[in-house]
Amino acid sequence: MAAIGVGLIGTGYMGKCHALAWNNVATIFGDVDRPRLVHLADRNSEFAAARAREFGFARATADWRALLSDPEVDVISITTPNQFHAEMAIAALDAGKHVWCEKPMATSLADAERMLAAATRSGRVAIIGYNYIQNPVMRHMRKLLEEGAIGTVTQVRIEMDEDFMADPEAPFSPRSEKASGYGALDDFAVHTLSLLWSLVGHARSVMTDLGKPYADRPLADGGRRTVENHDQASVLMRLEGGIPAVLMVNRAAWGRKGRIALQIFGSAGALVYDQERMNEFQIYRVAGPTGEQGFVTVLAGPQHRPYDRFVPAPGHSLGFNDLKVVECRELVAAISGEPFRAVDFAAGLRIERSVHAMAQSFAERRWVDVA
Amino acid sequence: MAAIGVGLIGTGYMGKCHALAWNNVATIFGDVDRPRLVHLADRNSEFAAARAREFGFARATADWRALLSDPEVDVISITTPNQFHAEMAIAALDAGKHVWCEKPMATSLADAERMLAAATRSGRVAIIGYNYIQNPVMRHMRKLLEEGAIGTVTQVRIEMDEDFMADPEAPFSPRSEKASGYGALDDFAVHTLSLLWSLVGHARSVMTDLGKPYADRPLADGGRRTVENHDQASVLMRLEGGIPAVLMVNRAAWGRKGRIALQIFGSAGALVYDQERMNEFQIYRVAGPTGEQGFVTVLAGPQHRPYDRFVPAPGHSLGFNDLKVVECRELVAAISGEPFRAVDFAAGLRIERSVHAMAQSFAERRWVDVA
Amino acid sequence: MAAIGVGLIGTGYMGKCHALAWNNVATIFGDVDRPRLVHLADRNSEFAAARAREFGFARATADWRALLSDPEVDVISITTPNQFHAEMAIAALDAGKHVWCEKPMATSLADAERMLAAATRSGRVAIIGYNYIQNPVMRHMRKLLEEGAIGTVTQVRIEMDEDFMADPEAPFSPRSEKASGYGALDDFAVHTLSLLWSLVGHARSVMTDLGKPYADRPLADGGRRTVENHDQASVLMRLEGGIPAVLMVNRAAWGRKGRIALQIFGSAGALVYDQERMNEFQIYRVAGPTGEQGFVTVLAGPQHRPYDRFVPAPGHSLGFNDLKVVECRELVAAISGEPFRAVDFAAGLRIERSVHAMAQSFAERRWVDVA
Amino acid sequence: MAAIGVGLIGTGYMGKCHALAWNNVATIFGDVDRPRLVHLADRNSEFAAARAREFGFARATADWRALLSDPEVDVISITTPNQFHAEMAIAALDAGKHVWCEKPMATSLADAERMLAAATRSGRVAIIGYNYIQNPVMRHMRKLLEEGAIGTVTQVRIEMDEDFMADPEAPFSPRSEKASGYGALDDFAVHTLSLLWSLVGHARSVMTDLGKPYADRPLADGGRRTVENHDQASVLMRLEGGIPAVLMVNRAAWGRKGRIALQIFGSAGALVYDQERMNEFQIYRVAGPTGEQGFVTVLAGPQHRPYDRFVPAPGHSLGFNDLKVVECRELVAAISGEPFRAVDFAAGLRIERSVHAMAQSFAERRWVDVA
Repeated sequence: MAAIGVGLIGTGYMGKCHALAWNNVATIFGDVDRPRLVHLADRNSEFAAARAREFGFARATADWRALLSDPEVDVISITTPNQFHAEMAIAALDAGKHVWCEKPMATSLADAERMLAAATRSGRVAIIGYNYIQNPVMRHMRKLLEEGAIGTVTQVRIEMDEDFMADPEAPFSPRSEKASGYGALDDFAVHTLSLLWSLVGHARSVMTDLGKPYADRPLADGGRRTVENHDQASVLMRLEGGIPAVLMVNRAAWGRKGRIALQIFGSAGALVYDQERMNEFQIYRVAGPTGEQGFVTVLAGPQHRPYDRFVPAPGHSLGFNDLKVVECRELVAAISGEPFRAVDFAAGLRIERSVHAMAQSFAERRWVDVA
Repeated sequence: MAAIGVGLIGTGYMGKCHALAWNNVATIFGDVDRPRLVHLADRNSEFAAARAREFGFARATADWRALLSDPEVDVISITTPNQFHAEMAIAALDAGKHVWCEKPMATSLADAERMLAAATRSGRVAIIGYNYIQNPVMRHMRKLLEEGAIGTVTQVRIEMDEDFMADPEAPFSPRSEKASGYGALDDFAVHTLSLLWSLVGHARSVMTDLGKPYADRPLADGGRRTVENHDQASVLMRLEGGIPAVLMVNRAAWGRKGRIALQIFGSAGALVYDQERMNEFQIYRVAGPTGEQGFVTVLAGPQHRPYDRFVPAPGHSLGFNDLKVVECRELVAAISGEPFRAVDFAAGLRIERSVHAMAQSFAERRWVDVA
Repeated sequence: MAAIGVGLIGTGYMGKCHALAWNNVATIFGDVDRPRLVHLADRNSEFAAARAREFGFARATADWRALLSDPEVDVISITTPNQFHAEMAIAALDAGKHVWCEKPMATSLADAERMLAAATRSGRVAIIGYNYIQNPVMRHMRKLLEEGAIGTVTQVRIEMDEDFMADPEAPFSPRSEKASGYGALDDFAVHTLSLLWSLVGHARSVMTDLGKPYADRPLADGGRRTVENHDQASVLMRLEGGIPAVLMVNRAAWGRKGRIALQIFGSAGALVYDQERMNEFQIYRVAGPTGEQGFVTVLAGPQHRPYDRFVPAPGHSLGFNDLKVVECRELVAAISGEPFRAVDFAAGLRIERSVHAMAQSFAERRWVDVA
Repeated sequence: MAAIGVGLIGTGYMGKCHALAWNNVATIFGDVDRPRLVHLADRNSEFAAARAREFGFARATADWRALLSDPEVDVISITTPNQFHAEMAIAALDAGKHVWCEKPMATSLADAERMLAAATRSGRVAIIGYNYIQNPVMRHMRKLLEEGAIGTVTQVRIEMDEDFMADPEAPFSPRSEKASGYGALDDFAVHTLSLLWSLVGHARSVMTDLGKPYADRPLADGGRRTVENHDQASVLMRLEGGIPAVLMVNRAAWGRKGRIALQIFGSAGALVYDQERMNEFQIYRVAGPTGEQGFVTVLAGPQHRPYDRFVPAPGHSLGFNDLKVVECRELVAAISGEPFRAVDFAAGLRIERSVHAMAQSFAERRWVDVA
């Protein structure tokens, strides 16, 4: 297959992260042609041109639609603010381009549904950037679960916590507006749902409590404004197969910086993981003398594919940006018609539905099934 | 005050633990008279006499009622199986004895209510053995919370997990019978509720999911018997003051041996604790340069009273049995009419009510207020 | 065998610790007769009498020699300051009493040699209080080493660090006087040598560097006094069998409270331990799939004898004082003529010789063999 | 300054790592022109051409000297086996190219000296690839030390351990031949010395013990061959300023995968780091209430420059390959005549001298000063 031609919309942090992935995927994996970095779009021409030089793209534009008509562009990375995802993704798919769109999928369920429809009718590859599932450690945990290493899963707990909303005296920001979404459900629950899907299965029914740690926040002019969404969410869940789970997310959790703490209990063992130490996981297996049983702390290494493509020795650590390179490799596989592991628009929509069901459950104080 | 005369009913593990506490309280604390170990009761005379020799008690009996009429006995430790707690505690209180009864309070809510009534009418001291709250580390965390060290509490998560019911092929035991109670709610939730009460407050309303990891368990004769209660419980809660909390307990959690994991988030920091490392806690405070902020792991030491009574140097560890000595000292304080910190029958009943509300919530699939 | 009659000299922290052990050994172990607490000595009569009441001793005296002639006393616990150990231990042994003497053995090598001679000629049991070797976790590690769980030992590293001398502006104390000994070598190296002996073997040759972090310390009157010994020691060693080892001790190590960090590498695995978390150890074994190999964190439990005598469930933690009860049980075994595991005066002397060889090595800047 | 033209010799793991760095430095940092990847050399033309396509280099060659005469090449990355470093680096410098040479510097001290001489006479930038010092966490620790955050340094301990030589039955490899060097001293001690230099200072005098865990190893044909160098080294050291240090390295340490454990004790605190968790460090400071003092675990974040260039949020982890990008940015700074932090050939030679002094110390069983 000829080298893929890449278009990139948006050059903020995630745009940079996509650019790194496209730059590195051939060097890292060796088994794919080096992509051609064709066309980059950002809000004004000068800015876009500067980013193109930095990121190694051949052309730059202030008009993202220019990428749609660029015949050298095969796939478009969409890394703009959430409200633009639907319009851009649908236009790109309709123009015959493959799409790699950052999470969350869209700002409304209707938009997400239209995105899936566009992907389906286009026949193009369309995936959402849930890169945590690409961590070699996470992929290995999935493999272990599939092999039955801990038996049948009997319970799951997952927490995702950061503290960027923890300061009650931080100025009121758009993140606290209702228009930005539900709060922690949109910011964090979607990530944890992508991991649960990857490891165990989708949510089937949910019972939610939302928390608003601070009723209002200060305005620049000295007054205070009422907080309109929820920084905390705690959800009782039943996953596919009836597996009980608890999902807890909090973006006002002082001290947590990038925590995604996962506990999976099975009939023959347990798996434990914390994203703040993303290069290790723990496994407990019922084997050997009782007096030497305990959680094994396994450091990431070449046995956890595709860690080996990044570093040949164990215990030497991959980083956050490396996960995007893995995701990029999966996308290339998908475009090539090979098996791949990523959140396509169908799985992405299911995640969105789960989040909306969670919000509904809180509003109605009852268990809600995920449609 | 004259040395207290002690009676002990039951000499299983908790009986031994009480005996150690009575033996050590004066040596450890130095500020109380050495109790007189007067009278010990167990099921038969010979066995009771042997235990009395080991534990240092002067007299032994196979009839626990003999303790009620023993004028040298001031206080009675009740460490028998749960179904005897109510009868013995009420009889002891009615006989004018103080009572130190092991948890859980009783096997029915009605019994627990009768116990509180007996305590009230007797005017005697009556406490339940929730010794985890006596850990110097836990007491220090309470002090920090009272001082506002982490600001206003915004969320609490508590987990208690062990794995003694984790093996699906372990023989069916009475613990899986409905008659033994709800399962994990009785075994573990009561402990976590005692900690929450001690640190933050009682539960006000609850929303529960119970989990039954294994539908049946093998019988000795080769068949299988249906499991009648739940090894897992997950509960969304609102505590006093409306603080959101999540309580998770699981007695089938492979790999967990004595885990009680606590996370308390506040407006100015966070506290983290795990009972499997009971000689340390973690605190995050918003102070100093951002680049050096993080969770502080504090090792137990003399500053965490009354650790200093056990060991003069920090980092040298107390053990589980030591917590009972602290509880014993609190009981002595209570008997002496001094301020004390322990779960009296009123607080104990509130814990029982919370557990029953949790079970009701699961049955009715709705939020239930704790009466 | 009749119940042992106990004498105790000294009621400071270690005296209290011995008293607790004598009070608890029968209750904990159940297989020894409850010792009779006969006679307690401390500096003045009133003080001694008060301690005797607290600790449960029948008689008290200001003259420790009164214990020698007390026919009811079979064994004497010596917990006085180091300079009195030799005189008291020798007198006790010569009076036909068994001796349980706190570490370090003596303040001079000559005294230690005289103590061993007295023990030998008396035929009585004489042990030194190195209780860290009695930790069930440590005893289990020894068992694992004996079983070859990690193959042949190829290297050992041991560190012992605390911070009570870490503050450069803390007033000059007797601990910094040459008369008090070498410094960290006496305070800490002896402990680590007891552990090495227990696990792997005695030191055979040593090469030492000593460190003096602060040249002088402030005096109460405003001046400063030169520090006369060394708060730090680092030692290259060859143990019995030629095993290379490194021993590092530092009593001026900020942040360390009770750290004894041990790493034992073998041809088929490794063992790791840290006394600040004395209820766990780590083992790495070369077994199973490479992708799931790692250090297993094993929580102390009933399989690690005699943990089961203290608590029936794993993960519930023993404390520092519990180790003394185990040591007491070993002493009772020794007195009864049964096999026991403790540092007797012969092993104790070997530890003392090792420390003196370390000091000599530093003075002469060369490797020194331990006599 | 015009974009730098890059030549790369060698395309094994470190060659790939350099290629990634050159590809990413502009995207990551944004403040340097995107380097031109000009010319790549490897052993045969076809192989080199394939790597050039993967890595994004314009030209490929089987003759590394072709890079010397390529006018578009400004700097040459040397990532070939160690024995070629000296010849290539000297030729490159003599041809007027800047040099980025992988560690270790050379296989003999004489070669290393000639390399430094070539660098000096050329006036070109010449650095050795010691990328661990570029970890933002490590750089922050250096900043803290410079600011006196833990007072005056009183002691340092550093360990570097892996287990790739731990299996006694792994076939004899060239790594066990004397010709390959001293063993652990060359493989690991140089890394730890680069860190010590970066944080505290060079070694001034050393006292070494080397260990050979296995006398021989199996040959493919069934016999066994004597091991000719040492997998373990333990070194007492005095650093610049007389600071006592202990350096321990072991490439036969089962269970260790990429451990570089560092402990720095100071008069007002301590710093602790472990490379296996390279995105965090620990700091203890004497401040605040004693009852809340402890080691703070700080997760890497934007405050630790230049972490912010990779990820904007804390707790999201950099990886091993990212460190090479930081080193590349330092190299670019050096070429631009700006201040930079990297191991230049002068510092690199000092590290080599230290290692040779360590070997001499072992041979002569005495302290040796580093020339």
